[in-house]
Amino acid sequence: MLAKHLAVIGLGLIGGSVARALRAAGGVGSISGYDPDPQRREQAVTLGVIDHAGDSPAATVKNADLVIIAVPVLRTADALNAIRGAIAAGAVVTDVGSTKQSVAADVETVFGELPPWFVLGHPIAGTEKSGVANSLADLFRKHRVILTPHARQDEKALALVRALWEACGARVVEMTPSQHDAIFAATSHLPHVLAYSFVDVVGKLDDSRHIFPNAGGGFRDFTRIASSSPQMWHDIVRANAPAVSELLTRQIADLQALQGMITDGRWDEMKAAFERARAAREYYLTQIE
Amino acid sequence: MLAKHLAVIGLGLIGGSVARALRAAGGVGSISGYDPDPQRREQAVTLGVIDHAGDSPAATVKNADLVIIAVPVLRTADALNAIRGAIAAGAVVTDVGSTKQSVAADVETVFGELPPWFVLGHPIAGTEKSGVANSLADLFRKHRVILTPHARQDEKALALVRALWEACGARVVEMTPSQHDAIFAATSHLPHVLAYSFVDVVGKLDDSRHIFPNAGGGFRDFTRIASSSPQMWHDIVRANAPAVSELLTRQIADLQALQGMITDGRWDEMKAAFERARAAREYYLTQIE
Repeated sequence: MLAKHLAVIGLGLIGGSVARALRAAGGVGSISGYDPDPQRREQAVTLGVIDHAGDSPAATVKNADLVIIAVPVLRTADALNAIRGAIAAGAVVTDVGSTKQSVAADVETVFGELPPWFVLGHPIAGTEKSGVANSLADLFRKHRVILTPHARQDEKALALVRALWEACGARVVEMTPSQHDAIFAATSHLPHVLAYSFVDVVGKLDDSRHIFPNAGGGFRDFTRIASSSPQMWHDIVRANAPAVSELLTRQIADLQALQGMITDGRWDEMKAAFERARAAREYYLTQIE
Repeated sequence: MLAKHLAVIGLGLIGGSVARALRAAGGVGSISGYDPDPQRREQAVTLGVIDHAGDSPAATVKNADLVIIAVPVLRTADALNAIRGAIAAGAVVTDVGSTKQSVAADVETVFGELPPWFVLGHPIAGTEKSGVANSLADLFRKHRVILTPHARQDEKALALVRALWEACGARVVEMTPSQHDAIFAATSHLPHVLAYSFVDVVGKLDDSRHIFPNAGGGFRDFTRIASSSPQMWHDIVRANAPAVSELLTRQIADLQALQGMITDGRWDEMKAAFERARAAREYYLTQIE
């Protein structure tokens, strides 16, 4: 048993899925949950995702020995302030935010330090769909979860959060918050910005109404992440702005270089760039589990 | 019966798949095929994709009443020159090239005009895999095929090519070559360039070896098209260079604008761009069959 009472603050896709996964694994006794949207709270109870909906974040966590903060990343500080006085002695608190330096900064601001019982985490899972209604018990199965332990980290708290994610079928990897933010700027934040930008460029073309019906499977997959929640990706890009901006500089320079090859007719150079990219993607395919 | 003798020049994914589809539909008598790679010719016979492998393009087409040119788009002129004297009287010739203005120009150069019996076509199907070994009888099922009829087009030739694709389970749409090239620059050529460029940018980062294992499902789908054939996409971008370059200018400007919002902290503006893109993608989802 990981926890007698689990509290989940934020009943979106991730919060709902972790509750479902831990219940399916038999890892928790009862589950309470809170979301600022009362309809979502009701829906989470109706769907059996949580046992009890709290009236406030504080009321939701007060008897919990394990608390998962699963709110949009820019709401982290508000959520922590809301539960600050109500966290039980000995409870372990973790989060699922897509950026880790910003969450670490929020935790320090709210608690005056990084408490030993706070474990920073990020499950690498999700779909372009959002909300508790789309949550899935197997969302994390065979996915990675990144934990970024800090200097004052309690080892038992870290072990509990590791066990939590392993119970969900995930594989836990540790790194520092800054490593995390650099890596996910490249694998996740930049591609989301590119996908939104590309679809916006196409959508603004005069003949976009004639364009979309002719888009094939390549377009569908390339643009899938542009169906993700704009609010969530606004939060993530804002929380990791320096890393995203630095990569955007590289991306824009690379596209300008490619455009130069196209306008100058330096075709061998362009083909070599395509070949290098294809080789990198084939290498990537060997690296994922 | 569409044709007693079908000849397919170019035994790649598309040439192989159209041969398989027409055979499965009972639409053709015998199928001959040619590919410059002798191993591929043998493989196509062994796999039952074609009945006979020709020793040359001319020998392959000489008894055919229907010829499908399925070569990389920059090889079109060579392929047409190779079969020019051997096309039977009354035969219909069509192609599957991903750009249509360049193919129309090649046909005019080789034949001195756009012959009534030549039908320009482009099936909107494919995968990131290539070669006859990956060909599929149902590759075109429920996909679009674009035909771009010209001023001197024979109506019976056009009807035969339309029937060919309908026998493969596809839906045929007509437009002009320039409309085609503008639309597919946006839905297909630009995203391939972006995907190659993005993967190349990430692959060139110092810590790319640590980055790839942490990439999730969004990265996988976003980069799938970067596994496509560099030779094929070199050909397509080169054949449609003005349209691709014009869109790259818009794409780069859009990314620069987004980066400006990020560095200036104009977050509402950035979120509005993400929201516009998401709405455009949701609209696209309503437009595909």
